[in-house]
Amino acid sequence: MLQERIIIGIDPGTLIMGYGAIQVIGKQLNVLQYGILHLHQCPSHAIKLQKIFKYTLEILDEFIPDEVALEAPFYGKNVQSMLKLGRAQGVAMAAALMREIPITEYAPRKIKQAITGNGNASKGQVASMLMSLLEFKSLPEKLDATDALAVAVCHAYQQQHSSPKLTTWEQFIQQNPARLV
Amino acid sequence: MLQERIIIGIDPGTLIMGYGAIQVIGKQLNVLQYGILHLHQCPSHAIKLQKIFKYTLEILDEFIPDEVALEAPFYGKNVQSMLKLGRAQGVAMAAALMREIPITEYAPRKIKQAITGNGNASKGQVASMLMSLLEFKSLPEKLDATDALAVAVCHAYQQQHSSPKLTTWEQFIQQNPARLV
Repeated sequence: MLQERIIIGIDPGTLIMGYGAIQVIGKQLNVLQYGILHLHQCPSHAIKLQKIFKYTLEILDEFIPDEVALEAPFYGKNVQSMLKLGRAQGVAMAAALMREIPITEYAPRKIKQAITGNGNASKGQVASMLMSLLEFKSLPEKLDATDALAVAVCHAYQQQHSSPKLTTWEQFIQQNPARLV
Repeated sequence: MLQERIIIGIDPGTLIMGYGAIQVIGKQLNVLQYGILHLHQCPSHAIKLQKIFKYTLEILDEFIPDEVALEAPFYGKNVQSMLKLGRAQGVAMAAALMREIPITEYAPRKIKQAITGNGNASKGQVASMLMSLLEFKSLPEKLDATDALAVAVCHAYQQQHSSPKLTTWEQFIQQNPARLV
């Protein structure tokens, strides 16, 4: 029996936050939902953070994902924008930590590599590869939602390519009978 | 009747988080508790953030403060350390946002100015001024706890020096009878 997993990808920014929920059954990936949260109009930075926190919690409570994948750039224009970005990431991560859902971070280059095979691919290239992988007829209007779907797909691939995690001795023995002496 | 308020000061860092809880009754400030959370030994950045989040929630649930004051530097050595600091601040802020407790941020210079009258005061000067203000016999061993108490005291002073917030027309008229025409 193929195990079903739900992965939510999040791309938290200080102006727009994107999210995408996918269902993984074996090698099959299905899009459940994607969207963006506008943060332009927030009167203060604190309200912005509160909005990201509450919205992330709502998404997690709607889809009850097994894992969260986060697009996390490790460099930026200047220290102040990085502090703000870190806070946006921090509150989104806190929502997942609160629900005890494991978080994995991926740098943008790693995501592009996983989707297109090229770490320097353009946003457009990532988007059209996603379209074909997820059998989309048209692209989401906002590329922030595409980015969030991309990190979820990247995480799904990462898990498929890595060896399954063995959590118990029983599982280990079941999968490695030859090693039983 | 003097209103009692509880303020919690937080100094979230990536190696140590300091906190301090004070009670404000009129001009009297009483220390309720202070302490630090060590983050050196955390095996991963995610576990560090989870620890900050859970610990901040525990402190908030213990003291049920009216307000949270955050020491928040706006500059740093490099973009990567600022991203990490932003995340630490973000998860601590998320805990307060979750409990719907208002957060006010203060830059280190502003805190030093409020406590000692000098924005360039040394950590030692801030600590000895705090000792006298809070009637401490000895200083906390770790200055991170002192920093957290300092931001709480800074916030208490800020509130005392600013005019009381008027929330209703009734209050405004009560306090400004001459303006009733």
